[in-house]
Amino acid sequence: MRKLRMGMVGGGEGSFIGAVHRRAAALDGQIELVAGALSSTPEKARRSGRALGLSEERNYASWEEMLEGELALPEEERIDFVSIVTPNHMHFPVARAFVEAGFDVVCDKPLVHTSEQALELVHAVEKAGTIFCVTYNYTGYPMVKQARHMVRSGMLGEVRKVIVEYSQGWLVRRLEEAGDKQARWRTDPALAGAAGAMGDIGSHAENLVATVTGLEISAVCADLTTFVEGRRLDDDGNLIVRYEGGAKGVMISSQISTGEENNLSLRIYGTEGGLQWRQEEPNHLLFAPFGKPLQILRRGNPYLCEEARRATRLPAGHPEAFIEAFANLYLEAAAAIRARREGRIPKRPPDFPTVRDGARGVHFIEKVVESSRSERKWTEARWETPQPENARASASAPPGRER
Amino acid sequence: MRKLRMGMVGGGEGSFIGAVHRRAAALDGQIELVAGALSSTPEKARRSGRALGLSEERNYASWEEMLEGELALPEEERIDFVSIVTPNHMHFPVARAFVEAGFDVVCDKPLVHTSEQALELVHAVEKAGTIFCVTYNYTGYPMVKQARHMVRSGMLGEVRKVIVEYSQGWLVRRLEEAGDKQARWRTDPALAGAAGAMGDIGSHAENLVATVTGLEISAVCADLTTFVEGRRLDDDGNLIVRYEGGAKGVMISSQISTGEENNLSLRIYGTEGGLQWRQEEPNHLLFAPFGKPLQILRRGNPYLCEEARRATRLPAGHPEAFIEAFANLYLEAAAAIRARREGRIPKRPPDFPTVRDGARGVHFIEKVVESSRSERKWTEARWETPQPENARASASAPPGRER
Amino acid sequence: MRKLRMGMVGGGEGSFIGAVHRRAAALDGQIELVAGALSSTPEKARRSGRALGLSEERNYASWEEMLEGELALPEEERIDFVSIVTPNHMHFPVARAFVEAGFDVVCDKPLVHTSEQALELVHAVEKAGTIFCVTYNYTGYPMVKQARHMVRSGMLGEVRKVIVEYSQGWLVRRLEEAGDKQARWRTDPALAGAAGAMGDIGSHAENLVATVTGLEISAVCADLTTFVEGRRLDDDGNLIVRYEGGAKGVMISSQISTGEENNLSLRIYGTEGGLQWRQEEPNHLLFAPFGKPLQILRRGNPYLCEEARRATRLPAGHPEAFIEAFANLYLEAAAAIRARREGRIPKRPPDFPTVRDGARGVHFIEKVVESSRSERKWTEARWETPQPENARASASAPPGRER
Amino acid sequence: MRKLRMGMVGGGEGSFIGAVHRRAAALDGQIELVAGALSSTPEKARRSGRALGLSEERNYASWEEMLEGELALPEEERIDFVSIVTPNHMHFPVARAFVEAGFDVVCDKPLVHTSEQALELVHAVEKAGTIFCVTYNYTGYPMVKQARHMVRSGMLGEVRKVIVEYSQGWLVRRLEEAGDKQARWRTDPALAGAAGAMGDIGSHAENLVATVTGLEISAVCADLTTFVEGRRLDDDGNLIVRYEGGAKGVMISSQISTGEENNLSLRIYGTEGGLQWRQEEPNHLLFAPFGKPLQILRRGNPYLCEEARRATRLPAGHPEAFIEAFANLYLEAAAAIRARREGRIPKRPPDFPTVRDGARGVHFIEKVVESSRSERKWTEARWETPQPENARASASAPPGRER
Repeated sequence: MRKLRMGMVGGGEGSFIGAVHRRAAALDGQIELVAGALSSTPEKARRSGRALGLSEERNYASWEEMLEGELALPEEERIDFVSIVTPNHMHFPVARAFVEAGFDVVCDKPLVHTSEQALELVHAVEKAGTIFCVTYNYTGYPMVKQARHMVRSGMLGEVRKVIVEYSQGWLVRRLEEAGDKQARWRTDPALAGAAGAMGDIGSHAENLVATVTGLEISAVCADLTTFVEGRRLDDDGNLIVRYEGGAKGVMISSQISTGEENNLSLRIYGTEGGLQWRQEEPNHLLFAPFGKPLQILRRGNPYLCEEARRATRLPAGHPEAFIEAFANLYLEAAAAIRARREGRIPKRPPDFPTVRDGARGVHFIEKVVESSRSERKWTEARWETPQPENARASASAPPGRER
Repeated sequence: MRKLRMGMVGGGEGSFIGAVHRRAAALDGQIELVAGALSSTPEKARRSGRALGLSEERNYASWEEMLEGELALPEEERIDFVSIVTPNHMHFPVARAFVEAGFDVVCDKPLVHTSEQALELVHAVEKAGTIFCVTYNYTGYPMVKQARHMVRSGMLGEVRKVIVEYSQGWLVRRLEEAGDKQARWRTDPALAGAAGAMGDIGSHAENLVATVTGLEISAVCADLTTFVEGRRLDDDGNLIVRYEGGAKGVMISSQISTGEENNLSLRIYGTEGGLQWRQEEPNHLLFAPFGKPLQILRRGNPYLCEEARRATRLPAGHPEAFIEAFANLYLEAAAAIRARREGRIPKRPPDFPTVRDGARGVHFIEKVVESSRSERKWTEARWETPQPENARASASAPPGRER
Repeated sequence: MRKLRMGMVGGGEGSFIGAVHRRAAALDGQIELVAGALSSTPEKARRSGRALGLSEERNYASWEEMLEGELALPEEERIDFVSIVTPNHMHFPVARAFVEAGFDVVCDKPLVHTSEQALELVHAVEKAGTIFCVTYNYTGYPMVKQARHMVRSGMLGEVRKVIVEYSQGWLVRRLEEAGDKQARWRTDPALAGAAGAMGDIGSHAENLVATVTGLEISAVCADLTTFVEGRRLDDDGNLIVRYEGGAKGVMISSQISTGEENNLSLRIYGTEGGLQWRQEEPNHLLFAPFGKPLQILRRGNPYLCEEARRATRLPAGHPEAFIEAFANLYLEAAAAIRARREGRIPKRPPDFPTVRDGARGVHFIEKVVESSRSERKWTEARWETPQPENARASASAPPGRER
Repeated sequence: MRKLRMGMVGGGEGSFIGAVHRRAAALDGQIELVAGALSSTPEKARRSGRALGLSEERNYASWEEMLEGELALPEEERIDFVSIVTPNHMHFPVARAFVEAGFDVVCDKPLVHTSEQALELVHAVEKAGTIFCVTYNYTGYPMVKQARHMVRSGMLGEVRKVIVEYSQGWLVRRLEEAGDKQARWRTDPALAGAAGAMGDIGSHAENLVATVTGLEISAVCADLTTFVEGRRLDDDGNLIVRYEGGAKGVMISSQISTGEENNLSLRIYGTEGGLQWRQEEPNHLLFAPFGKPLQILRRGNPYLCEEARRATRLPAGHPEAFIEAFANLYLEAAAAIRARREGRIPKRPPDFPTVRDGARGVHFIEKVVESSRSERKWTEARWETPQPENARASASAPPGRER
C-alpha cells in the first residue's frame, strides 16, 4: 500500500498543533509529509521545513506558492491532501483555495470565523466533491465511538440531560503578554475569531455532544466572561442549553479554571442509563444502566462496538491516548481519500467530522456570543442544515426559469 | 457531663431523615432522645415512639401535645431542645411554636416554604434569643470546613468561578406513584414547597457554596424542568449564577440523572488555586495550587485547619462519612445549647448553619423558581440580610416618635 | 425494645479504640453504657467514667471490682455484656473471668497472646454457652459481606489467587518514644504479644481473607522486619501464602509505608471473575466478570445480597464508613445476646467473628513469626479446628473408662 | 536532519509487538523502516514486508539474508540499526550476528534465554562498541523518569520497601490451544525460555524497580505456579525480595488475574516519602511526602525534572501513553546511534536500557525459577556485574602470561 502524500500549511517552529498533526499522520505508516508552507513568515517556513527534512523544492515559502507548485507537478507526484494547521483566521482562504483546486483537505477547528465563510466553504467542498475533514480530534477516541454507539442504539433510552465541560487553567494569568505564542493568537480576535475559550475549546464540547448524541441545539443561554484584565476575548463561559425534543443541558468552557489541565468531560443521562467519559482518562467509559451496578467499559475489549474496536491499536490495559485519537481521524480521512483516488465507493461511510460539522460549530459559536450579549434568556440557536447550493438556487428560482 | 434531652417532631415509621437525626444525635453520647411526637398520625406517632423506647408519658400523639406536656414539666426535666424532622410544610408552625415557647431548635432544611415565613421565624428566634440550627448537614464534613478555611484565608486568591452540582438519579421513574413515601412528599407542592429537586437538594448546593466561599449571589438564570410525566415539581434544574464582586458560577440540581446516587460536588477556581470536594468521597479534598502539583488533603491529618481537626473522630484512613458530618452539627448545636443553659458565652462561635442561613436558602429557591418562569436572562437574586426587627421598626418609624 | 446494658473494660482517657466501641455501640440506639472499669489505673478509670457520665456506683476502679459489683446486682440490672478494649495482654484474663461468670463478651483483636490461651478461651466460651464476638471490625462492612456472598455463591468460579494488604505509615518514625500511647503499647511485646504490625493489622488481613473466601491457609513463608531502630517488634511484614486446595496468595502488613493511612485492600482472582475492595473507599466493590465490563457495585442498592442490604443504614450515595461497620458487629452481637437472654433460637445465624475466628488469628500470628525465623521456605500453618473439650477428653480417654 | 534507516527482524503478520515498534519508531519522524525480515517463514516475511511498503530488494526472506544484503550495500544506504522483535528464542542468534557485524541494535525483552548467552552478548556489544537498547518500554514513561529522579535525588529518604506488581488476566483460559499466537509462543519453553509470566512481564517489574530505585536484589524467595492445566510455564508468581542495604520487597507477576488488563504498578516507601505509579494511568505519579498532603504530579508540567519534561510531547492534560513511552526509547537510542555515526560524544548520557540491563533481567528470571524449585527460603540472587572481557581474562590469567 503506497503512503499518501501530505502537504502542510502552518505548523512550523513554536507551533503546538502542527507537531501533533504530523505525529498523528505518521503513526500508522500510511502518510508521509512531502511538502509544506509551514509559516506565514517565509524565513521561518523554510527553516521549519528543513528541520523536518522536506526537500528544498517542496519546502515552500507560502501557501500560495505551495498550491501553485503542487499543481505544477504531475498528478502522481502531487500531494494527495493538504493539512491546514494555521491559526484560525487563515483556515478560510487556504481551505477554499485548495478545495477549489481539487485537493482533499484536513483542517483544524474551529473551521472559519463566520457562518458566511462556513457556508461558502460547505458549498465549495460539495461542488468540488473533495474530502474535507475537520479535526475535532476528541471524536477519534475509541470510547467516544463506543458512547455514540450506545446512545444511538438506545442503551440509554431517551436522553434527558447532557452535561459537557471543557475546563483548562492555562490562561489563569495573562500569558499572552508573556511571549506565549499559543496564548497570543488564541486571545486575538483578528486571529482567533469572535470567541476565545468558547471558540478554542467550547467548540470541541459542542461537537462532542453532537457526535455522541445526535441532539440538535434549539436554544442557548450563555454567560461569557473575560476574567483576566486586558484580555480581548472570553476566557470563561457557562451555558444552559435546550435541545430539540426536550433534552436539557449545561456546557462549561473555561481557560481560567486553576488546576484543570484539559478536562473535557461528557455526561449523558437517559431514561434507561447514564454515561460518563473524561478525556484525561480516555480508555474508560462509565455506564450506569438503570438499577444495575455501574460498569466501566475499557478500551481494547471484545465487548465493545465495532467502531470502537476498529479505532484501537493496542490490547486492553496498554493505554492509548491523545495522539492515537487524532491519528484515527487521519486514518479515516486517508481511507476516504484513497477511495476517491481510486474511484471506489468506500465499504463503509468514513468516520470523521466533515465540513458540515465544522460549519455547525461556527454557527454555535456565533449564537453563544449573541446570547451572551443578549438580555433575553434564550437565544434561538437551531442550525439550519445548509442546502446543497443548486437546491437552494432552484428553490429560490422563479418557476419555469432554467438554471 | 450530663446528656442533653432531645425531643423529636416527625421521624416516625418509614422516615428516612428521622433515623439519621437520631443516629447523629446518639453518636457522641452527649444527647438522649427523651420525648417525641413522631408522626402526624397519632397512632403511628405512638407506635413509633414505643419502638424507640420512649416512655409512655413523653411519647406524644402530636407536636402540640408535646409542647404542652414539656412545658408542664419542671425545667430540669424538660427537653433541652426539639429536633424537627417532618416534611417541609410543618417546619414553620412547629418551629415557630417551640421557639416562641423558648425552646432551642434543630430543624431540617429547607427551612420553610416562603420568605415571609422565613423572615417571621428569623425575628422570632432573635427575639427569643434561642439557638436554632438548620441541618444543612453537608457543611458538617471536616473537609468542607477545611475548604472554607482555605478559601477564607486566601489560599485560592480571588475566587472567579464556582461549579456546584447535586445530582441524584432516584427519581428517574415515577416512584411517587409506586408507594415510595420519600418520593411522594418531595414531589407534592403542598408538602415540599414551590420547588422539587431545587428545594430538596439544590438548597444544599446553595448553602455549600455560601458556607465555603462566603460569596453572595447577585443574579440567577435558571431552567427548571419536570422530566417525569405527571410529576408536579421540578426534578431537574440548571442555573448560571453571578456573584457579588464578579465571580461566576454554575449550579446543577437533578433527581433524574440516571446512575448518580448522591453526587454533591463543589469546585472553586481562584486566581491562586483551585479546590474540589465530592460528597461521595468526603474524606478527601483536592487542592490545586497554581503551577504546583495537585494536592490531596485527607481527613484526620495534623496539617488541616483547627475546625477540620476538631470535627474529626477517627485517625486518617479510617473513613468517616455522612452520619459523622451530621453529628457534627448536633455537637456544635449542643455546645451552644449547653452554653445558653449555663449562661456562658461559648469560647468560640458555634459552627452550624443558623436560621438566617435557612432564610437565605428559602430566598434562593424563590428566586430560582421566579427566574425559571421569566423570559429575562437574569433575575436579580441578592438576599437582603434581614434587619433585626426593632432596627427595622425604628428605621420605618416616623422621626420623633418613641418606641 | 429495651436497650442492652454494656459494661466496658479499658477504653479510658487517651484510648483510641474505646471511643470507637462506644460510638459503634451507641449508634443504633440499642445499647447503653452503664458500667465501666476504663483503665488499669484506678484514678484514671474513675476520671474517665465520670467524663462519660457513668453513675458513681458502676464507675469501677478495676475490672475485678466490676465483675464482683455486677454479679452482686439483681440479674435484671446487671450488664448484659462486657466490651473488652484494653491493650492485648489483658484480653485473656478479663475475657476468661467474665466468660466463666456467664457474661457475654465483645472483645477486641487479636484475641490473646498465645494459642494455648486461645484454646482455653474457646473451651471456656463453649462450656459457658455465652456469646463471644471478636471485633474484626472490617468484616462488618456491607461490601465485605457482598464480596463474601459473591465468592461463596460461586460468582468468581474457583479462587486461584488472593492478594491482601494492610499498609499504614504512622510508625515511620519512632513515635513510641515520643509519648504516643497508641504506638507505645503496640510496640511493646509484653502488651502487644509476639508480633507488632502483623498482630495489630496483619491479623485483620488474615481474618478478611478467611471471612470472604473461606480459604484455609496451608503454609506461609514470611519475612518480618523491624525497620525503625530500637523498635522491639516487627513494623513490616511480607508473606507468600498457600491455601488448601491450591490457591496462592500474598499478604502484606506494614506500619512504615509512608503515605499510607489505613490501606486494607483485598483482591481475589477466580476462574470466572475477580473482586477488589479497599477499606478506604468502603462503599464500592469492584467486580470483574470474565470477559465482560468491570462492575462497580455500590452500597445501598437493591441488587446487593441480603446480608449487605441488612448491614446498611443509609441510601446509596450517602456514604457509610468505619463506625457503621463496627456498629454492625455490635448489632449482630446484640441480636445474639437478646436471643440468649430470651431463650430464643435466632431466626438466622448471627453474623459476627467468634472466639474461634479469634483463635485462628492467634495461630496465624504464631505461624508467621515462626516462619520469619525459619530458613525453610514453607512453614506448615494449617489451623486444626479446636475440638469441643469433651470430645477431646473422650477421644484421649482410655477405652472402657466412663466420663 | 536525515531519518535513521531501520531494519526489522520479526514483527510480521499477526505480531503484536512488531507493530508497536514500528509505530514507536515512526512517531517522531526521525526513523524510517527500509528493510525487514519480518517472519521466520519466508512466504510470510515477504507478504508482511509488501503490506508495509518495503521495497522488493530489502524485503528479505530471512534475517541471515538481511544481514548479508545490508552488508553488501554501500554504508550510506545500509540500515543504521536493526530492531529485533521476534519471539524470545531468536533474540540471541540474531542480536549476536548483527552486533558482530557492527550494527546497532534495538532488541525486545527478555534479552535471551540464559545467563551464558547474556554474558556472551554483553561482551560482544562491548567489544563491538555498538549501541544496544533493550525495550523495557515502561521505563520510557515520563513519570517513571520523574520517579527515578525523586528517589535518586533523595526525596524519599532511604528506601525501605518496594511493592511492584504486573498483573494481567488474559491467560485465565488456555488461549494457547485456541489459536492465539501471542499465547502460544509465550507458553512454549522452547520459544519463551525458562519462565512464562515471570519472563514475559515479571522481567518488566524487575527492570522497573532497578531503574527507578537503583536497588540491587540480594535474595529472592519465589513461588511460581501454573494454574491453567496443561500449560507448560508459570502463569503466576509471587516473590518476596531482599535488596542490598536492607530494603525489602514484594513482586507479583500474573497472567491469570481475572479482570486485570495490564496492571504494572510500583510503590516505593522511604523514610521521607512514598511514591506510587500505575502504568494504566501513566500520566500521574503519586507522591506522599512524610506528614504532608499527598501530591499528584502530572505529566507535562514545568515542576517536573528535566528528564521527564524532555520525554514529553504534549501539554499537560493531553494524555500520552504506551506508544509515546515506547517511542522515547527509540528517540534515546536514535540519539546515541546518530552520535556514534557522527563520531560525537553525546551531550548527555543516553537514557535507555542497555544490554547489561537485559543481562541482569535474564539473571533475575533464572534466580526466580531456581528459588521456586528450592526448599530453602532464600535464594541468593545478587547479580555480579559482568567484567569487561579482557579485565576478566587478565584477572583470571596466571601472572606473567600474556594474552
